Amino acid sequence: MFAAATALAQPGPEAQIRAVLTRQQEAWNHGDTEKFLQGYASNTTFVGDKVTHGLTELRVRYQTHYPTVASMGHLTFSDVEVHMLGEGYAYVIGRWRLERSAEAGGDTGGIYTLILRKTEKGWRIILDHTT
Amino acid sequence: MFAAATALAQPGPEAQIRAVLTRQQEAWNHGDTEKFLQGYASNTTFVGDKVTHGLTELRVRYQTHYPTVASMGHLTFSDVEVHMLGEGYAYVIGRWRLERSAEAGGDTGGIYTLILRKTEKGWRIILDHTT
Repeated sequence: MFAAATALAQPGPEAQIRAVLTRQQEAWNHGDTEKFLQGYASNTTFVGDKVTHGLTELRVRYQTHYPTVASMGHLTFSDVEVHMLGEGYAYVIGRWRLERSAEAGGDTGGIYTLILRKTEKGWRIILDHTT
Repeated sequence: MFAAATALAQPGPEAQIRAVLTRQQEAWNHGDTEKFLQGYASNTTFVGDKVTHGLTELRVRYQTHYPTVASMGHLTFSDVEVHMLGEGYAYVIGRWRLERSAEAGGDTGGIYTLILRKTEKGWRIILDHTT
């Protein structure tokens, strides 16, 4: 019974992964790019119209695309599916939506695939294909 | 020594995965959609502008987007990176290019992320995000 209670107290991998995304969404909506980037592994890869390797390059990409809090707008993730790939990896599909004023670029959105790896610090995104 | 020779005779997972992609490219360039689709698992997911679940739906998608051999054109994969995710999974990033006559839609191309799983039949694509 004690073991069962301990198991219940520890969220499973899917809940841990969803919590990473929720923290990212909250950080973004507070204009906190640095906290948002904590969801990524340092050796992460971002696939957009081109491939960006590493967190340092990804930080530059976000700072270039979203230079102001207004341009960051309000982020919502939806239709999030989490699929485990063995014990230490998982992938996620979801939709993203940014609500912004017309002056800040207007509303935008799309679809993403993430691959996450379980690290000592928790689940981290090692691959993000966003379109 | 005999064990070493056997190991050499068996290509490693990265070579096996690259062979799946090469077979897909060859099948496509022979106008053989059915053989091309053999690279996918039956429960595969395709992420484009929307999410397509399952090989049956994916077949319909390809038949709709590429109804003729001319519209299929000549496919080339390039800049292919293979990354293992533990022993039974891997992801691949690469670029695709279709060369076609202007009447058949003209040249097109983009970038893809694949997730593959090792099955009894070999490595199969379980997720394809193509843009």
